[in-house]
Amino acid sequence: MNYMKKTFIKRLKEINLNKPLFIEGLPGIGLIGKLVSEHLIHELNAVKFAELYSSSFPPQVLIDENGIIEPLKNEFYYLKSAGADHRDFIILTGNTQGLTPEGHNEICNEIIDFIEEYGVKNIYTLGGCETTQNNEKIKVIGSATNEELIKMLKDNGVKIRSAHELIIGASGLLLTLGMYREINGVCLMGNTRGYSIDVDASKAVLKTLISILKLKVDFLKLDERVEESIRIISKTKKIKQENPDKTHLKPSDDDLRYIR
Amino acid sequence: MNYMKKTFIKRLKEINLNKPLFIEGLPGIGLIGKLVSEHLIHELNAVKFAELYSSSFPPQVLIDENGIIEPLKNEFYYLKSAGADHRDFIILTGNTQGLTPEGHNEICNEIIDFIEEYGVKNIYTLGGCETTQNNEKIKVIGSATNEELIKMLKDNGVKIRSAHELIIGASGLLLTLGMYREINGVCLMGNTRGYSIDVDASKAVLKTLISILKLKVDFLKLDERVEESIRIISKTKKIKQENPDKTHLKPSDDDLRYIR
Amino acid sequence: MNYMKKTFIKRLKEINLNKPLFIEGLPGIGLIGKLVSEHLIHELNAVKFAELYSSSFPPQVLIDENGIIEPLKNEFYYLKSAGADHRDFIILTGNTQGLTPEGHNEICNEIIDFIEEYGVKNIYTLGGCETTQNNEKIKVIGSATNEELIKMLKDNGVKIRSAHELIIGASGLLLTLGMYREINGVCLMGNTRGYSIDVDASKAVLKTLISILKLKVDFLKLDERVEESIRIISKTKKIKQENPDKTHLKPSDDDLRYIR
Amino acid sequence: MNYMKKTFIKRLKEINLNKPLFIEGLPGIGLIGKLVSEHLIHELNAVKFAELYSSSFPPQVLIDENGIIEPLKNEFYYLKSAGADHRDFIILTGNTQGLTPEGHNEICNEIIDFIEEYGVKNIYTLGGCETTQNNEKIKVIGSATNEELIKMLKDNGVKIRSAHELIIGASGLLLTLGMYREINGVCLMGNTRGYSIDVDASKAVLKTLISILKLKVDFLKLDERVEESIRIISKTKKIKQENPDKTHLKPSDDDLRYIR
Repeated sequence: MNYMKKTFIKRLKEINLNKPLFIEGLPGIGLIGKLVSEHLIHELNAVKFAELYSSSFPPQVLIDENGIIEPLKNEFYYLKSAGADHRDFIILTGNTQGLTPEGHNEICNEIIDFIEEYGVKNIYTLGGCETTQNNEKIKVIGSATNEELIKMLKDNGVKIRSAHELIIGASGLLLTLGMYREINGVCLMGNTRGYSIDVDASKAVLKTLISILKLKVDFLKLDERVEESIRIISKTKKIKQENPDKTHLKPSDDDLRYIR
Repeated sequence: MNYMKKTFIKRLKEINLNKPLFIEGLPGIGLIGKLVSEHLIHELNAVKFAELYSSSFPPQVLIDENGIIEPLKNEFYYLKSAGADHRDFIILTGNTQGLTPEGHNEICNEIIDFIEEYGVKNIYTLGGCETTQNNEKIKVIGSATNEELIKMLKDNGVKIRSAHELIIGASGLLLTLGMYREINGVCLMGNTRGYSIDVDASKAVLKTLISILKLKVDFLKLDERVEESIRIISKTKKIKQENPDKTHLKPSDDDLRYIR
Repeated sequence: MNYMKKTFIKRLKEINLNKPLFIEGLPGIGLIGKLVSEHLIHELNAVKFAELYSSSFPPQVLIDENGIIEPLKNEFYYLKSAGADHRDFIILTGNTQGLTPEGHNEICNEIIDFIEEYGVKNIYTLGGCETTQNNEKIKVIGSATNEELIKMLKDNGVKIRSAHELIIGASGLLLTLGMYREINGVCLMGNTRGYSIDVDASKAVLKTLISILKLKVDFLKLDERVEESIRIISKTKKIKQENPDKTHLKPSDDDLRYIR
Repeated sequence: MNYMKKTFIKRLKEINLNKPLFIEGLPGIGLIGKLVSEHLIHELNAVKFAELYSSSFPPQVLIDENGIIEPLKNEFYYLKSAGADHRDFIILTGNTQGLTPEGHNEICNEIIDFIEEYGVKNIYTLGGCETTQNNEKIKVIGSATNEELIKMLKDNGVKIRSAHELIIGASGLLLTLGMYREINGVCLMGNTRGYSIDVDASKAVLKTLISILKLKVDFLKLDERVEESIRIISKTKKIKQENPDKTHLKPSDDDLRYIR
């Protein structure tokens, strides 16, 4: 097999799912999507069943906790019969997103092709956004692919995103690419002031998501997970703390190099 | 169908047109092309018949007035037997242009291929340009693919663009790509000082265009349309007003992110 | 024919040449290559026989002297039995170079493929370079594909370029791509201090070139040609004259936008 | 043969090797990888047997010591039965790395395809990294593809790289691409403060490498080699000496132009 010549998905496990709901949580603004998706994976014991590699990822590798080299990749996990609704789930996390427009589109298209095979009809994409209103009461901002879902978001206390705003990267692309296949979806964005790791915004998104999806997830470990992430970042980068609150670190281009 | 793997055009309606005149008004400098093309579409009740998608568009999506996700795309509208000349028209508008040189060329080539099918022999591309002379008396600057059209522009009071200037993006590329198929055309550019939305320059281009094409279009709603656009931008971005005149907003890289 | 989908060469005239010498003078540092090649073309009455178009050129068009739209392109001219040696020549000029690494390589490869068909065995590429020594006595700096040609350059008073310097763009790539086909060549660079149009450096390169190639070319018109270029630039751009000498204009990114 | 249309490897010599160990030393941070690999090649009399060319290398050429044009390329050398272990080696050096993500991946994939043919099962990649601790006692930092190799590095006094750090370019990509083929490996990075040529860090990496691989290499000539490199750089660029120690030159974007 000629690995890495383009975007490809390596299946690790044959599984059968019943109309699973797809949740995307790749790294992005405030690391919100990644934190929430990884928290769900750990708390609900989701199982990895596939990995995506792409030559359009940045030409870099990461080092893991043991000093071992880790390729840039996206990872698919699944969950069977979870939450009050006994639903199946596919959760996507990873350590990077695509780089060029063409690469980004190719990767998201491969993801949609792949999840469609398992019968996915609904997508939740997770991320962050910086609101200009600086209204701190707004915690979670949402957008959706149809009016019914917009109504559902409003009913769940989600503020709807303003017209002519942008969603950059996989959280937006996956939804539009899904629309062409009659897959509908929602984007939940934590209201962030641009910190490299925004734990409050992540908690708000998690809270909204599990309420909508009738999942039961412990929040305690999210703080531990964030503390761990902050420790790692603090250890490896000299970060100017612009905020005395340790959980709010201002991002620099450097910190985000491996995210996008 | 494998959507978004490259540039493709989705036909929404089968139509027959008689040597239609093609008008391009994609977003660009001063939003002039987009404002004029959308004003024409609304005032003349043009009907959408096709949409263009491309993996070379920026990897982003937009939010519409209802919070619903909208892919980046270009849109084709048509008009039958319009104006004093009872001519057919195809009008192109959209919310983005290509990003890489190769992508930009591919997209414009697809557009030319597509409109050629309908028998297009004449193109009008619309945009803005910043003149160095700062001569405020010059309102509309033009360029064309042959001498006959240059003469026609002069007869209509259009100042001809200086040698060795550039036209960047679709407004230029569509004209040269058309030349290879014996499609001739004109580029009308509003003289702008670089505002993100230049309503005066847009009006000047609109006025020139409808005079040449013998169309009858109300101007009142253009102001409303611009006011609406400014309201949206003001609401979503903190714009430093460098000009007391509300219709003249200085662009920042940020504002133009979704245009190019 | 599907124009502009990749790099292609349009032949305008069938010609037969006898081992022609190939001279490349595309726009670059100080516009030296372009000025010298265009001067040769006009003074020796070379005839255009082919044009190269590429989707890797910048997504722009130029305006010509009459306000007419001109695509970005490279142009091939030929000359039969010129100079004291009665040699045939192919001269390449144009209004742009490629943009991406892959595009640049594709374009240069197409050029080498094309000129090889006519039996080209020797290449002269023309450009400019900024020497750090600031030694104003050095007028022309050269490099070559073999030692014999290095010796020839020295015999003609050309200073050899220092080890580990770079030649960026077509002037360098064409020589290495030629080497794989056993086409040898020379790069002549005018010593420039980075002016957007360097007439002195252009004259020095022209003088060296015609001396080596035993061509007879009038210099008078070169000044006129430069004056014309400066007039155009002055008319269309506000250039800060950092040098009282009108023939030395400091370049800005803006001025060079259409060159690279 | 259609040279340079993509990435290709030109074989100069047919050779047979017995499970050779592969060492990569392409230019990068502090020029450490390149200095060490070239020192090994010269001291151990390794023989060149293949060259790699790519249209994804920067569109540039270099000038060699005699003023002769040299394409950007990577070079493969081999060694038979070297060191106390009588092992075969393939050593990769060169004057550049890829530019785009897709290009970088394509090139590294070609390299892995090529060395796999010779039976390579182990890779050593060499480079530099800037530690944030500024702990000057740490000389060499390592990473590896499995725990066994991490242990081996620790036993050899190598500090293991921290979690969530990055390795950018070929030194990282080659290791992950190797992992898919069951080729294991190690990355040795000299602890550098970002000098354009870091001789101390290069010596530290060389010392560690030859100790692990049981090679015997004279260090004297490394200083000469660096002095030579510095002389070249000093001659051709005006470098601001931010450090009185001549062997420590702060890099500028300019100096590194030909490296990445």
